[in-house]
Order: sequence, then structure tokens, then C-alpha cells
Amino acid sequence: MKTIIFLIQCPDQKGLVSRISTFFYQRGFNILHCQQHTDVQTGQYFMRVKLDLDTLTTTRRSLEEDFCAFARPLGLTWSVHYTDLVQRMAILVSKTSHCLYDLLLRRQEGEIRCEVPLILSNHPILESVGEKFRIPFHCLPVAPEAKAQQEEQVRRLLKQYHIDLVVLARYMQILSRPFVEEYAGRIINIHHAFLPAFQGGNPYQRAYERGVKMIGATAHYATADLDEGPIIEQDVERVTHEDSVEDLVRIGRDVERVVLARAVKAHLEHRILIAGRRSIVFSAGV
Amino acid sequence: MKTIIFLIQCPDQKGLVSRISTFFYQRGFNILHCQQHTDVQTGQYFMRVKLDLDTLTTTRRSLEEDFCAFARPLGLTWSVHYTDLVQRMAILVSKTSHCLYDLLLRRQEGEIRCEVPLILSNHPILESVGEKFRIPFHCLPVAPEAKAQQEEQVRRLLKQYHIDLVVLARYMQILSRPFVEEYAGRIINIHHAFLPAFQGGNPYQRAYERGVKMIGATAHYATADLDEGPIIEQDVERVTHEDSVEDLVRIGRDVERVVLARAVKAHLEHRILIAGRRSIVFSAGV
Amino acid sequence: MKTIIFLIQCPDQKGLVSRISTFFYQRGFNILHCQQHTDVQTGQYFMRVKLDLDTLTTTRRSLEEDFCAFARPLGLTWSVHYTDLVQRMAILVSKTSHCLYDLLLRRQEGEIRCEVPLILSNHPILESVGEKFRIPFHCLPVAPEAKAQQEEQVRRLLKQYHIDLVVLARYMQILSRPFVEEYAGRIINIHHAFLPAFQGGNPYQRAYERGVKMIGATAHYATADLDEGPIIEQDVERVTHEDSVEDLVRIGRDVERVVLARAVKAHLEHRILIAGRRSIVFSAGV
Amino acid sequence: MKTIIFLIQCPDQKGLVSRISTFFYQRGFNILHCQQHTDVQTGQYFMRVKLDLDTLTTTRRSLEEDFCAFARPLGLTWSVHYTDLVQRMAILVSKTSHCLYDLLLRRQEGEIRCEVPLILSNHPILESVGEKFRIPFHCLPVAPEAKAQQEEQVRRLLKQYHIDLVVLARYMQILSRPFVEEYAGRIINIHHAFLPAFQGGNPYQRAYERGVKMIGATAHYATADLDEGPIIEQDVERVTHEDSVEDLVRIGRDVERVVLARAVKAHLEHRILIAGRRSIVFSAGV
Repeated sequence: MKTIIFLIQCPDQKGLVSRISTFFYQRGFNILHCQQHTDVQTGQYFMRVKLDLDTLTTTRRSLEEDFCAFARPLGLTWSVHYTDLVQRMAILVSKTSHCLYDLLLRRQEGEIRCEVPLILSNHPILESVGEKFRIPFHCLPVAPEAKAQQEEQVRRLLKQYHIDLVVLARYMQILSRPFVEEYAGRIINIHHAFLPAFQGGNPYQRAYERGVKMIGATAHYATADLDEGPIIEQDVERVTHEDSVEDLVRIGRDVERVVLARAVKAHLEHRILIAGRRSIVFSAGV
Repeated sequence: MKTIIFLIQCPDQKGLVSRISTFFYQRGFNILHCQQHTDVQTGQYFMRVKLDLDTLTTTRRSLEEDFCAFARPLGLTWSVHYTDLVQRMAILVSKTSHCLYDLLLRRQEGEIRCEVPLILSNHPILESVGEKFRIPFHCLPVAPEAKAQQEEQVRRLLKQYHIDLVVLARYMQILSRPFVEEYAGRIINIHHAFLPAFQGGNPYQRAYERGVKMIGATAHYATADLDEGPIIEQDVERVTHEDSVEDLVRIGRDVERVVLARAVKAHLEHRILIAGRRSIVFSAGV
Repeated sequence: MKTIIFLIQCPDQKGLVSRISTFFYQRGFNILHCQQHTDVQTGQYFMRVKLDLDTLTTTRRSLEEDFCAFARPLGLTWSVHYTDLVQRMAILVSKTSHCLYDLLLRRQEGEIRCEVPLILSNHPILESVGEKFRIPFHCLPVAPEAKAQQEEQVRRLLKQYHIDLVVLARYMQILSRPFVEEYAGRIINIHHAFLPAFQGGNPYQRAYERGVKMIGATAHYATADLDEGPIIEQDVERVTHEDSVEDLVRIGRDVERVVLARAVKAHLEHRILIAGRRSIVFSAGV
Repeated sequence: MKTIIFLIQCPDQKGLVSRISTFFYQRGFNILHCQQHTDVQTGQYFMRVKLDLDTLTTTRRSLEEDFCAFARPLGLTWSVHYTDLVQRMAILVSKTSHCLYDLLLRRQEGEIRCEVPLILSNHPILESVGEKFRIPFHCLPVAPEAKAQQEEQVRRLLKQYHIDLVVLARYMQILSRPFVEEYAGRIINIHHAFLPAFQGGNPYQRAYERGVKMIGATAHYATADLDEGPIIEQDVERVTHEDSVEDLVRIGRDVERVVLARAVKAHLEHRILIAGRRSIVFSAGV
């Protein structure tokens, strides 16, 4: 079913559900789902409204102008998304393939809905994965003295392919502040640790040394502060003293895969709102 | 914060969010939370609306009459709950104490909000628990030839103490159909198995023999069909070949405790709607 | 590291650890790991001994004859496995690809160690997966009147390719008793339910209707009694009233994948002993 | 069943299982369970041997002298424990009662086996819990200028009551280095965070602000470096954007309870060996 999704945030105030739902009802829309959240600490209100696209009786532009006029006096910050427009996702990888395969297979199964016109890597090693799934694979190696140029090429390709969402599927490069800010809320990174534990590099080795009894992974939006962006999803798996660092890496792969996939799915379904360092992730709902 | 909660179900139709939220908005209510669910297989719509009780400007009776008139043409089935009226919960037990202690301690911690005017048992063994928490403990033994009379005494006590919710916290007696039907949707049972696996008696022994790798527990509303009522909550714990039946019993206790507590909490917070054999359990929300 | 693994079971008796470890010590072996389990209900003893293959000073045959003479008076049932001999696994599938992809990718990652000389299916639909991984794919459709002939062809191929382990990776066909008995303890099936709940067909639909709050998957050895074989591994995932049958199928895929992979890994690492309807699954250890 | 448990560690070397098991076999012992672990990074070997106490044919002192002579040339570090001697556990608390209740109830259920001759607190508030379970409750308030004296009193009481294990069940005081070192490996603390995330104070508030999607708890041995001791057990629970700090505190209580109980049980059953910053926690076994 094709839908229209409004993501809204504003200071909490009386009558929001009523006013917003009535706005759509009066224009003949069928509201399929309406989810809210109030952050009591900040007094901020968040809303996701899912409408049946078939019940749109005007042009999209007209709807948007209309809503814009409605939203201004209420102080709403909002975005609108039409699910007949398929989003375009670029996957950036380095040398490990498990997250890449996982996203491509889920897309093939129809679990996540998007186009993947582009795989980008700083290494040639995963080129064959692109071939298997018939997706253009661009290898842009990073010379130590030419990091900025390589990033420039990356950004040019993202523009050229009209990319909506950038997924860092174990892309072991740090992005520059301007890049991250241009794609604010549109770059998802998978970190192979249960953040904020083991922030930074080599988390499995450090987890082993610390003797933790569970390891985890964290999917978050990339921000200029490394590993500090809003967390979208986390999960863990139990380990024991018997597990070596290599075992942690292997067990971790399953956690990384699932955590990244859930985060990407939530983003593509327009279920996430960012509130400072926190994220509101609405359930998939019906 | 004191609130009013409306639980509503009806056939799905256009404009429900708008009409219902506007009903409350026009009467000056502050809507704190509004949750919905549509069962696409049955076309049934479910809603929970939480209002700030301080924004009620009429009598309760007048609100109810008003809503009744509003609900009839839309075909709404509904109930209303005022959280300044504390619910009264009876706990029925036999010989094992872990669920009983757990509920009493959570109540003491303020995790679940209710009065417990009454503990009922068919055995005297847990009397001291009642004493520890200063709650009247009634022992009504079940003579094999006098099951009906004993149940009659139980029902009389429940009435006398104005009980809203009956919790079978490992009460190993089968209740009669009339009893269950009188308290439909108001008796919660904890079954020490991951239903529908190991329905009936002796689940841990059977789980051991079958060699399962996880054991579970299930909280459900009691219905006339034993162990078939709508499931409210389930959870599991991992076990291995090393765990004996006694270990399963011990591990199971932790699962039972948590599962029952979550179910009771959801019920007392008016977050559950029953839809045939399924239950809608809304999240705790804000 | 190459190892020799002995899997032993016998009636429990005094001195087993000492005698068996001394047997190996006296022959100059380095014992890398030694795991035991006693089933107190049946008085049966289970042991797994892992030796450094480099410390073998005789021929394999001589070791085996030696151990045979040692084992007889103690009543040991045993098998021996040399990890320099790579096992050969056949994967049987029907139309769904997720378990197939998962096993092939884990093999590629080095998580599970085996050859996969053969994919077998009753449908042509997954042929391209075989091509992607360059593994011969045999399509043997099942005509309703010719089930026995098709199974005969399957068995002939398994023999021709010297298959050690048969994995039913969502192969939706029932195998005959003689087939199952010939490969006793060497056929692993993944059932898309938390057995014994929802034994038989259509588990996700039935789980939906029953309103369960968690769904699961079970990997077990195939036996003549359908879905009754010794369970190797199980896991579950939480679901809510919001999840449709299609959601359960999707969520279930992740559970099936992981559960099957863990079971296959345990089998290939010779960590499983079968004891009637139960299985002893030793931890991976070091 | 009464048992003797040997906990052994030493540099890895050939023939350990054989030699050690033969030592016991030759002296007529029935070995009930024998567990090992080799830390390949440090080359250290760990072993736990469980013997049937009824098969002891000498005095305990004679066994110990005998083993001492045997152990010296092999370089074994070891301890021996007789399970007919019930250990004595002191519980130290401040103002929150959930961990205290939990331990006392598990002891009452027979889940953990020990005496609790003493509850110690820096606040009087939980005195009634001691009364309910008839356990002496000592209140030793901490005056800011007299921290050292209070700790001295605590240590005196621990000695007077012959305490084997000190459990910090949310005792919000930092212990001095000499205290911690005197009771090395015998003080278990529960930290209400998934260490090393949110080390230090106020973990739930910080977890909320960081927007994590799971919260956890960690039981560890206390060392002079705060929150840095060997981890014994950890677990987590899923949370969402809907959960306030108060919700995290409430959800966390269940995790803390279970994590602490598992750690205490493992310690009392002599299943833990400490290896630097890591702990070896053998499974409960049979």
C-alpha cells in the first residue's frame, strides 16, 4: 500500500492530536496510523502520521503548501515522505562483507525497500559482491596524503547517483565534519560495540581484555563527534570466558548484521525522529 | 499524575482519530497519549486515550453520558478508567511463594499501583507471607468432594472485598466456567510453560524429557478453556543439557515472576484490550 | 590446529576421567579439552576428548584398534573424528533462500568448516544461488505419484558425492523412514517454530492466531517421527500485536538462520552426542 | 550431595587432566565433574574438580597435605572447598531493598546455599527487612569526617561474624584499598550499568541522556580500582525512547537482581576462578 508519512516535532501544547488529525480528516485522508511521543524533560512533542496515498485528492505540492500554512502558527517542524518514491541507498564498505551481504539479501527478500545504485569502498576486495548482485562497485582507495580528495570523490558519486541514505556498513574511515553535516540524519553507521562502551577502535580486543560477559553492536546516525551520534538500535549477545577474540568477532558479526538492518529499515520506513542526542524510533505498526 | 483512560474498540472506519480526539479537545481535555491498532485481518480498530484528569470540567457521569451518545453511532465498544480510584487485587496462591512475594514487593516499590486487601490459598503454608506484609490471608482448603463449595467461598470473599483483579500466582486449581465468565478479562494466570508448548500439567518435567533448549512462562487471561485464554506476556530463558528438572524449575521461577509482573502492570495501567484469542498490549508510553 | 576428537558414551562408573585421560596421556597425546556430562536420570555418562593431532605417534588405525580394546571392558560406545578430513555437507532447499545463503556465507567467512559439493532442491527457483557460489545445483522436482523415485535420486546423489551431513534448510518435503534411519544423527532440519509448540505446518499463521508474544525456531536431528527428533538448538524473538503474519515470517527468518547455523556448526565440530530424545551439545570451548 | 571442590590454576602443560584425575582416582574418589579452561593468550590453565565427599577415606588435613605435595612440582595454585561447611555471607546495603530481598528470598527457596548472619547498612531504612527474615541488622551511619572509623566498625563486624563473602547489594559507599585487598575475591558488587559503559555514578540518568536502547547491570569482584574488578556476570534489558529515567531505574532493578543472584550463586558454588582482570565462571554442571 502506498502511503504518505508526516514526521512532525514541536513544543508540546494542547490539542495537537485533534488539530493535526482533523487537518487530514477534513481533506478526505484516511489516517492509517498516528504515533506520538512527548519528551517530558524537554517538553518536546513528536508525531508520525501515516496516510493512505490513494486518498490524496490534490497535488502533492498543494498538500504541502496547505500543511505549511497550518504548521506555522503551531510551530511545527516537519517533513513529508511519499512511499511510491523509492529511496536510493549507497553502501560504503571496507574489507568485511557480512553487513553488505546482509543488506543486499534483505533488499532482495523485500524486507527493506530501496534502490542500491552504488557500493563504494576504499578497497577492491568486495568487488565480486557487487557483481553477484549486479550493483556498480566503485573502489576509491584512500592515500594517506589524499584523504580529502578521496572524500570529495565519494561525495561527488553520492550526488551523481542521487543518494538519499548513506550506510557505513563497516566502512573504516572517518568522515569530515562538512560531509557529515551535509548528510545530517542521513548517514547510518554500525559500530561493533555496545556504545558508549568501547568507543573508538578495536572494541572486541578491548572487550576480551575487560572480560565482559556480553558483546554488542550499535547503529547510530553519524555526527561530527565520532561514535557520539544518536543511537538508533543496539543489541547484544552472551559470551563466556571460553570465547577468544576471534570468537567475539564471529559472534559480533551476527549482532552487527541484525542491528544495522533494523536501523536501516526504520530509517527507510520514516519511523525515526532525531531529538538532540536521542532518537525516537516508532514501532513498525500496522 | 491522575488520568482518565478510555479503551475503545470498533470496526475500522475513516476519521476515528480525528473524531475521537476532537471530542476530547472540544471539551477542554489535554490528551496525554493516544495509541491505536488496526487488526487488518478482522478490520477491527483499537484505541487507548489517556487524558489529564485535572482538565475534566464536568462530572464523571456527565462525561460518560456524553461519550456514550457520541460512541453509539460510531459503533464503539468502550470502557473508561480513572486512575485516582485505586484498583483492588486479590492474589490466589497454593504452595509456592515466589510470584506472591514478587507482586507484593513490586507493589511496595511502587512499580505496580493497587491495593491488595486479600491473599487466598488452598494451603496454609504461605500464611506468614501475608503476615510479613500485613495482608489478610485466607486459607480455604479444597476437599475433593467439596470443590464447588470452596470456589463459592472464594467468590464470596472476592465480592466482599470488592476485588477488581484476580491474580492466579501459581494457584494450582482449575476454576469453574461460571467463575471464569463472571470475571472475564479480570483473572490473570501465570502458566509455567511457553504456551502452547507443554499445555497442561508438569511442564518442566516434559520440557526436560523433550530436551528443549529454552524454557518459558506465559501470563494469560483465564478462560473456560484451560490454558487457552488470550496471552498477555511471555518470556524465555536459555537452558542446556546440564540443567536437571530441578534446575528448570529454579530458572523458570525467574521467568514466571517477571512475566506475571509485566502482565499485571499492563492490566492495572489499562493498557490491554482483548480481541478474541489475541490481546492488544499497548506500550507503557509517556 | 588439527585435532582428534573422541565422542564417548557409557554407563556412569568410577574412574572414567582418570582412565580415559590416562589412556591418551600414556600414548603421548596432548589433551586440549575434555568435557563430560552425566545424565543422573539414566545414569549415562558422556565425554568429548579433543587431542592435538600432531601428538599422534602411531597410525590412525592403530590408535583406533588400541582404543577399541580399551573401550570394550568399560562398555564405551564411541566414535573418533580427525579434523584434517573436511566433512561434506549437502544442503536441501525448496523455495526460500535465507538459510541457504546464510550457510554459504558463513562457510565463505570460515565460520563453519566443510565442503558443500551439492545443493539439492525440488524447485528450480534457487539455481542462481548455486551459480553465485559455484556449487552444483540439482533440481529434482517431486511429482505427487513419484515421491519415492525422487527420494531415491536424492539418496543416490548423496552417496555419489560422499555426503557426511544433510542439512534441510527449509526443504519442505517429508523424508521416508529408511532414508532418515540410514542417515540417523546426520540430517539436521530447521523447523520454523519453537517446538513442541506449533509442530507441523503453518506455524507462523498459527502463532499469529494464538496471539503468542514470542516466535521461535528449532534445529533438530530428523527422525522417523516428524518434528520429534533430538533438539540441537532453539531461539526466539519478541513480537507484538502489531506484527502481522508476514511480519512473523520476516522476523522468523532471522531466528531460523541463526539457529540452523549454530546447530550445523556444533555438529561439524563434533560437539553433539545424542541420548534418546535429548542431545548433549558441548560448548565450543578452547 | 556433599562434595569436595578443588579450584586449580597453573601454567598449561601436558598431562594435567590425566595426572590430576589419577591423583583422585587412586585415592578412591568418585570424580563427579571435571571442568577445564585454557587461556591461550596467557598459557594459563584452569581446572575445577568436584568429588563425592562420601568417597573421602582420610582426614581432610591428610588429603590437603597429600595434594600439596602433589601440586608443588606441577606449579599448581589451588584451593579446596567442602560443601558441608556452609559459607557465611554478609549483605551490605544502603537505601534500596530490591537486591537485599532478592538474595534473602533465594536463600529461603534454597536457590543459594549460605548463612546470612548479618545485614549491614549506612542507613536505618531497611531495618524492617532484617526483622522480617530474623537477621541481625546493623546500622553504621557514615559521618563525612568519620568514614574510616565506620569502615573499621564494618570490618570488625565481618570478622566477629566470621564472614566468608561480602555482597555489596547496592551499598553506595566506596571501600578503602586495605579493606578490598583483605577480602580480595570475596567482595561482590552489583553495578547498575553495563560496564564499562557508564562507569561511576548516576548511570541511568546518563544512559537516558545518551539515548541507549538497552540498559544493563554488572556483578564484579571489588578491587581497589573502582568499577574495574573482574566481571562475573552481566545482563541487559531493552528500553525505548518512551522510557523515562524512572522507567530505566525500575527496569534496571530486575536486571540488577538477577545478575547479582547469578554471581553470588556461582561464587558460593565455587565455580569462579580469577585470572587478572578476567573471570572464569564454570557452568553449574551436574
